Amino acid sequence: MKRLLSQRRIFSEARQFSTSRSLQEIRSILDLPDRIYPAYRRLLDSKLLLGVWPDPGPKNVLLVMKSNAANVRAAATEFAQYINENHPDINLIFEREPAESLEKEIAQPIYTLPSLPDFSPFPFTKETDGRTPVSSRTPSKAHGDIVAKQTGHPDIFAEDIGDPFHRKTDLILTLGGDGTILHAASLFSTAKAVPPMLSFSMGSLGFLGECHWKDHVKAFLTAIGKDNPNRKGYSGEFGVLRRGRLKVGVFDKTGQRVAGEDWPGNNLGDVHVMNEVNIHRGAKPHLAIVEVFVAGRKLTETVADGMIISTPTGSTAYSLSSGGAIVHPAVNSLLLTPICPRSLSFRPLVLPTDCIVTLRLSNRNRSSEVEVSVDGKKWGELKVNEEIRVWGEQLRNGRDGGWEGWEGGIPCVKINSEGESDGWVGGLNGLLKFNYPFGEEEL
Amino acid sequence: MKRLLSQRRIFSEARQFSTSRSLQEIRSILDLPDRIYPAYRRLLDSKLLLGVWPDPGPKNVLLVMKSNAANVRAAATEFAQYINENHPDINLIFEREPAESLEKEIAQPIYTLPSLPDFSPFPFTKETDGRTPVSSRTPSKAHGDIVAKQTGHPDIFAEDIGDPFHRKTDLILTLGGDGTILHAASLFSTAKAVPPMLSFSMGSLGFLGECHWKDHVKAFLTAIGKDNPNRKGYSGEFGVLRRGRLKVGVFDKTGQRVAGEDWPGNNLGDVHVMNEVNIHRGAKPHLAIVEVFVAGRKLTETVADGMIISTPTGSTAYSLSSGGAIVHPAVNSLLLTPICPRSLSFRPLVLPTDCIVTLRLSNRNRSSEVEVSVDGKKWGELKVNEEIRVWGEQLRNGRDGGWEGWEGGIPCVKINSEGESDGWVGGLNGLLKFNYPFGEEEL
Amino acid sequence: MKRLLSQRRIFSEARQFSTSRSLQEIRSILDLPDRIYPAYRRLLDSKLLLGVWPDPGPKNVLLVMKSNAANVRAAATEFAQYINENHPDINLIFEREPAESLEKEIAQPIYTLPSLPDFSPFPFTKETDGRTPVSSRTPSKAHGDIVAKQTGHPDIFAEDIGDPFHRKTDLILTLGGDGTILHAASLFSTAKAVPPMLSFSMGSLGFLGECHWKDHVKAFLTAIGKDNPNRKGYSGEFGVLRRGRLKVGVFDKTGQRVAGEDWPGNNLGDVHVMNEVNIHRGAKPHLAIVEVFVAGRKLTETVADGMIISTPTGSTAYSLSSGGAIVHPAVNSLLLTPICPRSLSFRPLVLPTDCIVTLRLSNRNRSSEVEVSVDGKKWGELKVNEEIRVWGEQLRNGRDGGWEGWEGGIPCVKINSEGESDGWVGGLNGLLKFNYPFGEEEL
Amino acid sequence: MKRLLSQRRIFSEARQFSTSRSLQEIRSILDLPDRIYPAYRRLLDSKLLLGVWPDPGPKNVLLVMKSNAANVRAAATEFAQYINENHPDINLIFEREPAESLEKEIAQPIYTLPSLPDFSPFPFTKETDGRTPVSSRTPSKAHGDIVAKQTGHPDIFAEDIGDPFHRKTDLILTLGGDGTILHAASLFSTAKAVPPMLSFSMGSLGFLGECHWKDHVKAFLTAIGKDNPNRKGYSGEFGVLRRGRLKVGVFDKTGQRVAGEDWPGNNLGDVHVMNEVNIHRGAKPHLAIVEVFVAGRKLTETVADGMIISTPTGSTAYSLSSGGAIVHPAVNSLLLTPICPRSLSFRPLVLPTDCIVTLRLSNRNRSSEVEVSVDGKKWGELKVNEEIRVWGEQLRNGRDGGWEGWEGGIPCVKINSEGESDGWVGGLNGLLKFNYPFGEEEL
Ligand SMILES: NC(=O)C1=CN([C@@H]2O[C@H](COP(=O)(O)OP(=O)(O)OC[C@H]3O[C@@H](n4cnc5c(N)ncnc54)[C@H](O)[C@@H]3O)[C@@H](O)[C@H]2O)C=CC1
Ligand SMILES: NC(=O)C1=CN([C@@H]2O[C@H](COP(=O)(O)OP(=O)(O)OC[C@H]3O[C@@H](n4cnc5c(N)ncnc54)[C@H](O)[C@@H]3O)[C@@H](O)[C@H]2O)C=CC1
Ligand SMILES: NC(=O)C1=CN([C@@H]2O[C@H](COP(=O)(O)OP(=O)(O)OC[C@H]3O[C@@H](n4cnc5c(N)ncnc54)[C@H](O)[C@@H]3O)[C@@H](O)[C@H]2O)C=CC1
Ligand SMILES: NC(=O)C1=CN([C@@H]2O[C@H](COP(=O)(O)OP(=O)(O)OC[C@H]3O[C@@H](n4cnc5c(N)ncnc54)[C@H](O)[C@@H]3O)[C@@H](O)[C@H]2O)C=CC1
Repeated sequence: MKRLLSQRRIFSEARQFSTSRSLQEIRSILDLPDRIYPAYRRLLDSKLLLGVWPDPGPKNVLLVMKSNAANVRAAATEFAQYINENHPDINLIFEREPAESLEKEIAQPIYTLPSLPDFSPFPFTKETDGRTPVSSRTPSKAHGDIVAKQTGHPDIFAEDIGDPFHRKTDLILTLGGDGTILHAASLFSTAKAVPPMLSFSMGSLGFLGECHWKDHVKAFLTAIGKDNPNRKGYSGEFGVLRRGRLKVGVFDKTGQRVAGEDWPGNNLGDVHVMNEVNIHRGAKPHLAIVEVFVAGRKLTETVADGMIISTPTGSTAYSLSSGGAIVHPAVNSLLLTPICPRSLSFRPLVLPTDCIVTLRLSNRNRSSEVEVSVDGKKWGELKVNEEIRVWGEQLRNGRDGGWEGWEGGIPCVKINSEGESDGWVGGLNGLLKFNYPFGEEEL
Repeated sequence: MKRLLSQRRIFSEARQFSTSRSLQEIRSILDLPDRIYPAYRRLLDSKLLLGVWPDPGPKNVLLVMKSNAANVRAAATEFAQYINENHPDINLIFEREPAESLEKEIAQPIYTLPSLPDFSPFPFTKETDGRTPVSSRTPSKAHGDIVAKQTGHPDIFAEDIGDPFHRKTDLILTLGGDGTILHAASLFSTAKAVPPMLSFSMGSLGFLGECHWKDHVKAFLTAIGKDNPNRKGYSGEFGVLRRGRLKVGVFDKTGQRVAGEDWPGNNLGDVHVMNEVNIHRGAKPHLAIVEVFVAGRKLTETVADGMIISTPTGSTAYSLSSGGAIVHPAVNSLLLTPICPRSLSFRPLVLPTDCIVTLRLSNRNRSSEVEVSVDGKKWGELKVNEEIRVWGEQLRNGRDGGWEGWEGGIPCVKINSEGESDGWVGGLNGLLKFNYPFGEEEL
Repeated sequence: MKRLLSQRRIFSEARQFSTSRSLQEIRSILDLPDRIYPAYRRLLDSKLLLGVWPDPGPKNVLLVMKSNAANVRAAATEFAQYINENHPDINLIFEREPAESLEKEIAQPIYTLPSLPDFSPFPFTKETDGRTPVSSRTPSKAHGDIVAKQTGHPDIFAEDIGDPFHRKTDLILTLGGDGTILHAASLFSTAKAVPPMLSFSMGSLGFLGECHWKDHVKAFLTAIGKDNPNRKGYSGEFGVLRRGRLKVGVFDKTGQRVAGEDWPGNNLGDVHVMNEVNIHRGAKPHLAIVEVFVAGRKLTETVADGMIISTPTGSTAYSLSSGGAIVHPAVNSLLLTPICPRSLSFRPLVLPTDCIVTLRLSNRNRSSEVEVSVDGKKWGELKVNEEIRVWGEQLRNGRDGGWEGWEGGIPCVKINSEGESDGWVGGLNGLLKFNYPFGEEEL
Repeated sequence: MKRLLSQRRIFSEARQFSTSRSLQEIRSILDLPDRIYPAYRRLLDSKLLLGVWPDPGPKNVLLVMKSNAANVRAAATEFAQYINENHPDINLIFEREPAESLEKEIAQPIYTLPSLPDFSPFPFTKETDGRTPVSSRTPSKAHGDIVAKQTGHPDIFAEDIGDPFHRKTDLILTLGGDGTILHAASLFSTAKAVPPMLSFSMGSLGFLGECHWKDHVKAFLTAIGKDNPNRKGYSGEFGVLRRGRLKVGVFDKTGQRVAGEDWPGNNLGDVHVMNEVNIHRGAKPHLAIVEVFVAGRKLTETVADGMIISTPTGSTAYSLSSGGAIVHPAVNSLLLTPICPRSLSFRPLVLPTDCIVTLRLSNRNRSSEVEVSVDGKKWGELKVNEEIRVWGEQLRNGRDGGWEGWEGGIPCVKINSEGESDGWVGGLNGLLKFNYPFGEEEL
């Protein structure tokens, strides 16, 4: 009931009262100006890129939060207040659920996806696991028509407009742990140009996290290009580690993209993964039998619990647990790491990203399907003779020759750049306890 | 309908006509004389034991078959005919399903477990996965009473009599692969003294298999002690590799054995495993958090897909896929091998079998339970704060000082004893392709 | 004595009689015209480059042979005859030793490095292990002056001319195994632009080898651009897999390049390695203590038998034996793999090549030095507080925008390009027995 | 000169003045009464044995010290004073070098091996690396005769008397780290019944160490059976973890024990190792080619840097660095772990100790020999076609049926027996950082 009201507010009242800044309200993300894109330049002697905002910098900031965490809620409220007082021209976007839950505690208007009436079968406000690749939440054209009528926003569901988050977000902030970062990435899993992402850690610092919450003001200023100690005034500059993603598509035995009710990504383009895509026998007792092809040539047939295809970023996640090497995110590559293979001789592989790696469920597999997961969330089921194909996304140069990389990868804003600029070595030691020294308990 | 008939036959007609040897019929295993036990002696300079049958050797032979395999069916029929013609005093026992399916093709009477009327809730003729530890199929006393009334066999369900297979089988033969051997072992998973087991491989030789079907006559003669080339007449002697098993119990947080509808092993004693017991997150997305104790002392808390506790026999099965060492079955030990642990420093462990190893599902585990499997079959679910405890079964000396080992382990009959008597080194090379040489394609 | 004669012949008689093609003789490599450089273009959808010879193609071919192998000798003679009869404008270059030993069996004149009188301390005709990075064999200026006087070739030792092989070789052929390829690479270890290399395998095919000797005519035609089936006439085109190398320098604690009698690479520039550089305790009983820095930041201190820094090419060599991942040669990276580290948590690393990785021998190391080897040959000894620094060589674009890569890496000519063009997947299966299937001895 | 004097003193003056307790002097170990043997009993529910001294307990205590460590020297002096004041009937034995160096600082007489005149070729006071298996230091009969004449101790060199340490030591104390314990073990490497050993750690606690020096008084009382809290008066009881050793012999291709000047263990029986025996290519560039046999049957041929055969005790030493499993010392087994094998499929093995494992240097090995090391010290060189054979020492029952184990293994005295009695789990966590948790830097 409360829900119905709040929905109505968005698309009726909300729009009428949107002039007053101090009003607590939820507005539609579609009311925001379209996003702006920073340019990126390669830095000499560094794994990092230099991002530069077009003046006067980002306006639409998406705050992605870990759910059900009191300290994260408190931090979000604190941050909204900071923005309200210091950057009144910056708009805060939230996912629908935190938007509704935080509404009362935030003084300024906040933005979110338009919600839909309860009777609507619209998939992306309901039923879908939060981190399922966002493609599954983009409605089909048919849905679009229904919805358009209901909401008065006919255009947002047209194919050429795409996901409102993709269209409106200048900068992503995450509040939580690695899981929250992966979730934020999943919101842009079909986007080619992901906005810069700055991640704040609450509690403990994850491996992908960038900075502690206590440093959020300085970090935020850096991310919006207002904290360059070497430049007077506004520089718009910020350091970026671009984390390459992998593209994943699912195909049936005839080579057609898989169609059918069961596959959530049905009828849609490839999704991009930040950590990895994996297939796994799941609760099935028998080992999966998977054929692996590299650039169309059969590499091997593996009998195993499963198989991981990981980015360098994901090399410290599931692939690591399965015995894979640790690969620096600046090494443009993908990792092929088996999960408990029935073999003495399946050494993990590191492959180039410009050839397609294919995993096909053999018709000798004992059960009729295996699970496919993306970044740790179940995505669907791969049937016998179906295959997933994986390759690197292209890291494209920008329009202007001297600049590169406005497309491809997740541009992770780096704050702490003393010593080793990308923080990766520090993470190996501090978090993964890499080569942790044998005990020397001095007496 | 056919089933009802055949059931009736067993307990009515069948008993009336049991005098004629040539009659095709299924009889109750309870009609057989009780089993006899061979004695075992340690052989010098060998990993093997010498088994000796009391004169005149085994009479009740249980034939365990891989299901749904035409060649296995054919071999069983051929074997029955061989027995009928050459060893008329030997009785063949089958599991219920193959007994009914083979009945028509076998000339002599065959024996199986009594079946029960269809309306009976009796668990071991229905609903239960074939290889679920047999304990789960042993009915409770209450069931026993109902059933006794229906079948006229009141005693078989009394606690002090136990499983009919345990009470009647002198010698086990398996026809199939490693899975069939594991299944045969599961039929004796609550038995302390497992009968000698001889395994025939159909198709390809598995790692646990002993001999090819084509050699079955010679092998069978060896197993019943009639083929000792060094001894004239009947020696009763046969070579045995004793494969130690592990005992597994499930306990709740108060240290009580787990009770409750969901746990199949409920109300029962420990089961013995041949390969391993494992816990696994299964289809749950989040890593399992498991506390490990050795002899009551906390060893570690692991965050992983799962955890394996394996016998040396199982060291070439799931534990191998998870990175465990290969341990010779004569090394009295258990292996603790994590499945995809989120750690750089969980090296697989080999522990003595005379201390209890405990796996407790941490109350920090994100889901409320994980799966427990025994020898590759799902056994039940371990809830938060519950634990499984594992230790080696005792390998007991027999009554008479000079002899040892009539209790404990699975006595696997060994046929090919030239060179390396236990065949283990041969299996590493021939089957696991251990240290397979790098390619030397001569030109 | 014989040696003195043969030397004289090169620089006196030899030069006088160099007009007659049919004369058996050894000539100085310096008599040859300077080398020509192919251009390289990136091929779409392929890991390979397209090399194109400037018309009319390569003239100076260096034949590097495995020593002391009768079949290799025979093949070299056969090849010389083939060249003499079919490509009379092509000149064959050999290393000094095979040149002298084959002289009698080859009809046409052959070319080699000028030899020097016995009394000369000149390092590269004596004392030096054949595969020591060639830098150690390049004489200092002082030596150059002495030698120039003796030989009448004043210019070859001047710094700006460099190694005669580098200056004269258009195309390298190797005859032997992987060791011969590594040796050929070592002859160009200080060269920035290595000539294309085509490797023939005698006996068995090595992992780096390209084709069997029996196919040498077709392969050679391909390498010189005369065998393009898609183009009429001379195309000059050939397929190339560029294998990136690593640059290695040795520095003392003050950051100066190491000087001193003991270090063979003294006073010289960096060398390039094809497989790996490693440090190892060698015959010392105590573990080496090595500090590792990545881009100037301390990664860790390792206590181990040694440490390997490998190219992707070398990932199937020593690094593989030490537990490293297998990395495709097209992945621009370096591998850091410890040798028997006293640690549970040193997972092998894959790093970008554009930062310097440093291995410093800790002053807590128990012995005063450890061994440094390059591509499997001892190079020198690293003393306490000294360090080796490693980074990738630059793969430079050529002068003309559309072309790239005339500098950097070893351009390995690829012949068999059906299916998977680079042959790498085939090598994993055929030679390394990657994921070799568990035994299925059908009965 | 000083040395000659001190030697004389031992065998002339020393013997005359040996009545006065307070005199600083070095006496001959041969003056001591012969050793006494504790009995050992298996404890229920424990990996430990119960040792029991015959009343009134041990008298001859051998103190083995880390050399060149000031704090160890100080501790030894302090301990001698404690003994002098509290246990005047206990005699302290030292190795020759510390005996001479500590002589001045110890009030009571101390005992050591008799030294020999400088001109003597007697091997065990000179030339020999301290931890070379002691067998190499036991003189031949011929030496014995010469020496007997010189020293007036004719009997000590006779074969049937053997090593004076073996004959006289009741209890071993070590002061240092793991290396000191290994050294102490090496002094008894040819002894069948090693005395109980109590190890004190100075500085940091090693993996094999038992207790910190600060607890030495309590620990010593425990070791001599005077600190049983459950028993009034003298119980003689102490806890023991028996660490099994491996026996190693070297044989030529004809199966004869190797003879010849080069092999230090020449003409002698097998030695026992505490950690491992390994063969390694050492400073040779080429991989070693080693044939491995288990119980006479060929397991495999390995091409590797080397091969380790380790005890469970040694499973946390070199074998661990080479990827071996961690095996609890109570698991009676040996580990076969390759060092950097050129193979994808050489999984480490755990084998029973009652079969012989053989490593034979293949005649295809490229160099003529490889290095053999015992417990980290070079022992000799294994030539092509020679082999080392390894098997477990027998853990023999004592004379009296109720007692077992007076022979075999190293009886390590355990002090801290709360919780997990053998301290092994604690060592995995505290020292090896087993499964060290990933970073949770709380903010
Ligand atoms: N056995 C294993 O190791 C498994 C690992 N995962 C990993 O979990 C990821 C999903 O993470 P959550 O949603 O947080 O699930 P989660 O809450 O189950 O946590 C997984 C853990 O992995 C860490 N993590 C995630 N990405 C990482 C990275 N790139 N580098 C280092 N650590 C990383 C997280 O901090 C967390 O500690 C998946 O992408 C997959 O890589 C998933 C299943 C099994
Ligand atoms: N990722 C993995 O490696 C997994 C392995 N398993 C293993 O499968 C076993 C059950 O076997 P099946 O019922 O036949 O299932 P299955 O039909 O799925 O086959 C498992 C494979 O393991 C082999 N195997 C079984 N026991 C073995 C042993 N002791 N040594 C060497 N190979 C052995 C079988 O021959 C078969 O090739 C379980 O006990 C478990 O050890 C089960 C799940 C996953
Ligand atoms: N324990 C080990 O695995 C060791 C390996 N090596 C490797 O040997 C290489 C030198 O080779 P050789 O002079 O032929 O010495 P070698 O005659 O001792 O042979 C080494 C083996 O490695 C193979 N090999 C060489 N490079 C390879 C590559 N990139 N990929 C796959 N296999 C390769 C060779 O075919 C040969 O079988 C070194 O660069 C080093 O990588 C050197 C010492 C120890
Ligand atoms: N790459 C490696 O890991 C190598 C290891 N070693 C090991 O060193 C041992 C000799 O030790 P040291 O004379 O002290 O030489 P060392 O002074 O070179 O130290 C070797 C290290 O191993 C430790 N260690 C020794 N035995 C151990 C055991 N059983 N469990 C756990 N840690 C142990 C010592 O505390 C020390 O930290 C050899 O028996 C061998 O096992 C020897 C050479 C290479």
